[in-house]
Amino acid sequence: MTTILELARQGEATAALRQVARQENVSEEQLLEEVAEGRAVVLAGQRRPRCRPVGIGRLLRTKVSASVGMYGRSVHPDAEWEKVQAALGAGTDTLMDLSVSGPIDVLRRKILDEAGLPLGTLPLYQALAVAREKYGHPSSMTVEDLFAVIEQQAREGVDFLAVHAGVTWPVLERARRAGRQEMLVSFGGSHLIGWMVHNQRENPLYEQFDRLLDICRRYDTVLALADAFRPGCLEDSLDAPQVQELIVLGELVRRARQAGVQIMVKGPGHVPLHHLSATVTLQKSLCQGAPYFVFGPVVTDISPGYDHISAAIGGALSALAGAEFLCYVTEAEHTGLPDAGQVHEGVIAARIAAHAADLARGLPGAAEWDNELSRARKNLDWEKQMALAIDPRRARQQRQKTSAASAACAMCGKYCAMQVIAQYLDKPVHSC
Amino acid sequence: MTTILELARQGEATAALRQVARQENVSEEQLLEEVAEGRAVVLAGQRRPRCRPVGIGRLLRTKVSASVGMYGRSVHPDAEWEKVQAALGAGTDTLMDLSVSGPIDVLRRKILDEAGLPLGTLPLYQALAVAREKYGHPSSMTVEDLFAVIEQQAREGVDFLAVHAGVTWPVLERARRAGRQEMLVSFGGSHLIGWMVHNQRENPLYEQFDRLLDICRRYDTVLALADAFRPGCLEDSLDAPQVQELIVLGELVRRARQAGVQIMVKGPGHVPLHHLSATVTLQKSLCQGAPYFVFGPVVTDISPGYDHISAAIGGALSALAGAEFLCYVTEAEHTGLPDAGQVHEGVIAARIAAHAADLARGLPGAAEWDNELSRARKNLDWEKQMALAIDPRRARQQRQKTSAASAACAMCGKYCAMQVIAQYLDKPVHSC
Repeated sequence: MTTILELARQGEATAALRQVARQENVSEEQLLEEVAEGRAVVLAGQRRPRCRPVGIGRLLRTKVSASVGMYGRSVHPDAEWEKVQAALGAGTDTLMDLSVSGPIDVLRRKILDEAGLPLGTLPLYQALAVAREKYGHPSSMTVEDLFAVIEQQAREGVDFLAVHAGVTWPVLERARRAGRQEMLVSFGGSHLIGWMVHNQRENPLYEQFDRLLDICRRYDTVLALADAFRPGCLEDSLDAPQVQELIVLGELVRRARQAGVQIMVKGPGHVPLHHLSATVTLQKSLCQGAPYFVFGPVVTDISPGYDHISAAIGGALSALAGAEFLCYVTEAEHTGLPDAGQVHEGVIAARIAAHAADLARGLPGAAEWDNELSRARKNLDWEKQMALAIDPRRARQQRQKTSAASAACAMCGKYCAMQVIAQYLDKPVHSC
Repeated sequence: MTTILELARQGEATAALRQVARQENVSEEQLLEEVAEGRAVVLAGQRRPRCRPVGIGRLLRTKVSASVGMYGRSVHPDAEWEKVQAALGAGTDTLMDLSVSGPIDVLRRKILDEAGLPLGTLPLYQALAVAREKYGHPSSMTVEDLFAVIEQQAREGVDFLAVHAGVTWPVLERARRAGRQEMLVSFGGSHLIGWMVHNQRENPLYEQFDRLLDICRRYDTVLALADAFRPGCLEDSLDAPQVQELIVLGELVRRARQAGVQIMVKGPGHVPLHHLSATVTLQKSLCQGAPYFVFGPVVTDISPGYDHISAAIGGALSALAGAEFLCYVTEAEHTGLPDAGQVHEGVIAARIAAHAADLARGLPGAAEWDNELSRARKNLDWEKQMALAIDPRRARQQRQKTSAASAACAMCGKYCAMQVIAQYLDKPVHSC
């Protein structure tokens, strides 16, 4: 087949690309050029008629992704499905299923069938789980096991596959020499490196990157290059291991594009405020403008229990600096696994960050939302204010709790300062 | 008496200034120079032996203030005292009592006696309440009524008085000509303008600014110049009314310094991300480096129910740009009145913003907190991680809820990828 990227280069828009252009109020011509140049990707919901396609790129609204997944003892797909629904209800743009145990196929297929929006996975996780079952331990996973899972997930219609293809022995050696505070916090990256060291072999996702591209080309699946050396604390931000791996990821971006495969790059993690702009600028330069999918980032290490707030700060600034895709961080990020309520709040926090950046970067249509809500506020139209709030249900609940105290004031009668000013200004005033 | 500012100009440090220097790890000489130049203020807890002084300035830790106050039907001091305790428990640096009704003296005196940290007020609020009681309506407040309250509060030891001294008839006329989306959202500013229009008189806080300075000088009280035309929505940010008033505030800063009175300037409010740096830079320039006390700011209008998150984004960026003092915003800001739990979360959100900025601007000692927590994380020292978290109780609660799932893994045994890597790197690895 010919991929979305190849067609875009020929000036040909798929139905999904046209739909994304309509959703985003950009012209087909603009979006075609962005996709052709690799500055935008279209997650097309292949083989999933009920899936709404989503575009990610600098001319488009900043997108938010929520991750779910079965880990350790939390292995019931129903519990995760509740989180999926919480994420959908909160308005996430995409989902990632990062299950490492349990009936992984069951949950993924349910999401593919029912969630109606693009799904990403980390296929290595399932490959490790398969190996654990087949051989008793994940380190015995064969390269064929890994690629079998990748192909299966692509065939089923997973929209983007996250792969730690940039961690090679030379990168690893350099990391060992450089040292860092938190050597590895990427679950997939750690397991992949464990496999490499145990088996004394090169990273198959790098060594057989062409094979990976071949699968993605065949199913028109988007690649998301994940960073094994994503910094796990502020101290490690922009250090040699992170930047070394990013250089390799930039080379892989070029190869993917040559193969006609859409690609984006995942990023940190933990980034101090003064590193955010440099981090995004460096990715844009080394990865030739490929969309940047950042994980938060949190801007301080001291906020376990509130990392959604820390990540909203980092996400807003990253998006303003040019990152187009924000992976949410829940408040439970450094304390455990999130429940459905925390998933909901995590998505909302990321959406606030994304929207704050969109209006600041002058994205057409973004500020209109704020202006409409502000006008409703000026007109004391509470119902419209609540309806326009990013989370109407929560806004209404809070409003109901205290509406008595905020109801129209009856203290001053005809001496009401607001009425006096309104007369003078010939405009309504309502701060009382 | 000679004020802290006058003494600083003579190179003389008061006990409070010396204590602030110790708390902040700056030299007395540095702090003396900052105070003498008006780039830092010391809230000294005058006449309150149990009050810990707090310094606000560019060389010092970014500070956070929480507001409480009795409004409308919510007029019981005990309910507000519960919020005071929530704010103290969450680690606020200062408090503001913004009561507009009820037994205002009772709550303020309790805070002054028992809270142990600096308190600010908006004396106009109590003066309006007194007038309502005396005359039946606040517009009949006399200038003497207003100054009587100001003097009373200063005498009792209020540390900073917020006054809308910059809104004059020429500013008002310019605002009327310019127009804006949300003309007035400042409660105090609106009432003061209502008084001006009703009585056809100039703003007494401007007209008799010398009298105000005289009181502040007498009790060594810090002035906080409040902005009546603080923007109430993104659309109004950096518009003519806001900037016109800021020019006047800059003139008043100069006069306060000449009179030996410490002064800071209050700011917005609602500011889009791309205006934050310009907003702070403009204030620093027009107000000759006076500390900037921003209200949030929120970076989008669409987050009622989550404005603490929106304000954390704006607060972090403002502080990075040079604002030294963050007034918290609770999630209930645009829906009603916060309860104690929302006060707690509001303070924590503001503290995360302040700390993220402090470490990014290289404040000595700031990053050490993060690094210590990260080292505990690396060492899997959960108890230390929780103890170092910004809100240890919440971090522990979350941790307990899911600790089973995060406990040491027993899946892979001797094939554990983490152990394999740790051996290779000669460093502990623990992402599993």
